[in-house]
Amino acid sequence: MSGQQISSLGPGMPVRHGGDIYRNPVRHDFSINLNPLGMPEGVKRKLLETVEDWACYPDPECEDLRAALSAFHKVPADRILCSNGAADLIYQLVRTLKPRHALLLSPGFAEYEQALSLSGCEISYVRLCPETGFITDISRFCEQITPETDLVFFCNPNNPTGHAVPKHQMLQIAERCQKTGTWLILDECFCDLLENPEAFSVVSETERFSRLFILRAFTKTYAMAGLRLGYGICADRDLLRTLSFGRQPWSISVPAQEAGCAALGEAAYLNEARGILKTGRTYLSRELRRLGFVVYDSDINFILFYDQEESRPLFLYEACLKQGVLLRDCSNFTGLSHGYYRVCVSRQEENRVLIHTLEQILAETRKR
Amino acid sequence: MSGQQISSLGPGMPVRHGGDIYRNPVRHDFSINLNPLGMPEGVKRKLLETVEDWACYPDPECEDLRAALSAFHKVPADRILCSNGAADLIYQLVRTLKPRHALLLSPGFAEYEQALSLSGCEISYVRLCPETGFITDISRFCEQITPETDLVFFCNPNNPTGHAVPKHQMLQIAERCQKTGTWLILDECFCDLLENPEAFSVVSETERFSRLFILRAFTKTYAMAGLRLGYGICADRDLLRTLSFGRQPWSISVPAQEAGCAALGEAAYLNEARGILKTGRTYLSRELRRLGFVVYDSDINFILFYDQEESRPLFLYEACLKQGVLLRDCSNFTGLSHGYYRVCVSRQEENRVLIHTLEQILAETRKR
Repeated sequence: MSGQQISSLGPGMPVRHGGDIYRNPVRHDFSINLNPLGMPEGVKRKLLETVEDWACYPDPECEDLRAALSAFHKVPADRILCSNGAADLIYQLVRTLKPRHALLLSPGFAEYEQALSLSGCEISYVRLCPETGFITDISRFCEQITPETDLVFFCNPNNPTGHAVPKHQMLQIAERCQKTGTWLILDECFCDLLENPEAFSVVSETERFSRLFILRAFTKTYAMAGLRLGYGICADRDLLRTLSFGRQPWSISVPAQEAGCAALGEAAYLNEARGILKTGRTYLSRELRRLGFVVYDSDINFILFYDQEESRPLFLYEACLKQGVLLRDCSNFTGLSHGYYRVCVSRQEENRVLIHTLEQILAETRKR
Repeated sequence: MSGQQISSLGPGMPVRHGGDIYRNPVRHDFSINLNPLGMPEGVKRKLLETVEDWACYPDPECEDLRAALSAFHKVPADRILCSNGAADLIYQLVRTLKPRHALLLSPGFAEYEQALSLSGCEISYVRLCPETGFITDISRFCEQITPETDLVFFCNPNNPTGHAVPKHQMLQIAERCQKTGTWLILDECFCDLLENPEAFSVVSETERFSRLFILRAFTKTYAMAGLRLGYGICADRDLLRTLSFGRQPWSISVPAQEAGCAALGEAAYLNEARGILKTGRTYLSRELRRLGFVVYDSDINFILFYDQEESRPLFLYEACLKQGVLLRDCSNFTGLSHGYYRVCVSRQEENRVLIHTLEQILAETRKR
């Protein structure tokens, strides 16, 4: 982990993301990190049953959904704020908290940078190094948090590196932030797809930290990205109220609220997904290594790897796309370069398509 | 039309709206202004057919929907920005344009005030008077727009008064704003439910005015309030780009985009709705007058009336609610007082329920 670097990102520059299936001819999308089981049948059923109700305005207070989330997480409903996807809350938090100095992990999810740079915030990065497997050194990370740090975004497990920080270490960061008066925006959007979320999530500790805001989403966990549903958990009810009154009253659609309520009952589905992810992660890591890539250990539903022999920028990305296979090119993540790719873990038949495609491309290249 | 008044609204105060069916026992909701035909069958069909696609992230660029809107309005697709309901754009515009002085009609839609007061903007009101039927005197309105006016919100037809300003008069306002360098945010969210929208909408003139931003929504026109879908039309592509990069990339859900594309083909449905509204408007205006209320002429799908005999605040509202009938109490609109109510125009069987309920309540009151 090296020193800090100030962002030179201009405001208002669009960020490339995964999943642009709208302008790419894709048969197999490994660029987005959704639950490989797809949307739960129970959620689809609920959606089909409630179409008639979508004529009316949504409940601005999301009363039913917050009650369901309250029961699910065992936190009071008035500590929960729903949103039009977690990404919406990232922008709202930055606008509301107006940090002047923020600390980010690099590489990390690009929307943190985007939201912060729009507000003119100075960004420092704690760089994760390939040599140490992109794993965060928590003590050194905490040292970088000072009373001058207004806000920290931390994604656990981190995107795109896939490593999850155990709960006791996350609490160290939260304690440090509490001490320095720094807002810790902890993105746990992938957390429920971990094998054992309780060992990593700090949701149960929300009340202890007045400076902790936990971001959560249905997007990845229940493959509901198109419906847009996220939420925040925070002990500071004044902040939740300010966020709520600072936006339109009807941010969260009726289908999103209905789907969210239905999804929270899908415990068996989640267990099944975790099993598939474990098998797929082991298989993909082994096979990608066999093909000669540098593969970084992952705890979650995506894997970062590096093609140290990449003949020219985006070679692998473009060669795969020609076969209808979409990878996430990671060269636009701060701290990564050309040759880094992220792939999601899927069902075995899909995972095999990926490995087979890569194997063919490498064989072709060697022939030339 | 009287002078101006500076808003004393505090930021972050929640505004009451119509349609709170989530905390009221309502059988007949006359408080929201949706198309009485409900969501078009074609839209419902499209939704039911596409549920499987909602797992994936939405297209951030809304390419298909903007192409459909471009064909519908005959404006280039790059002049259109879609949003999570029109209300979202109201807040985004205020945040982006940062007006210091804004001019509003009073009474008018409360979200304009709410968004402006959050940003600390000074608000002046042009008061519409009951004596003149709440009709805007356009010349006098234009006089109030000065180079010091940074922004004007204008709703046509106006909510809650129901009067529509003809196109040539709207162009007068747009010309005045162009001259003074004032942003005209023209809310045409109800426009397509007018008998002859072309006589009122200035969408076809967008290119002429660099300071005109037209707000539109599917909400009311196609009874799609729960899906959240609005859009803006503006000649200033730089502003559209700034708005777009200043928010999360995935604001508009997949079901909203699908429903929007389907809705734009529903010409017969719109014609049928206009017929029902004409009949209902005539019937309700006549009957409400017969019952002794002061009724203001409406061109659209809602009617404002005044109960000059209201025995105590909210009497009519509460008496109706007891019968499962929800009115829109208008006492929280700036410039209106207790006794003002707004009701939407519905199918005749529904309209008769409303008149019958009111008639019974008045008869009971007189007995006492």
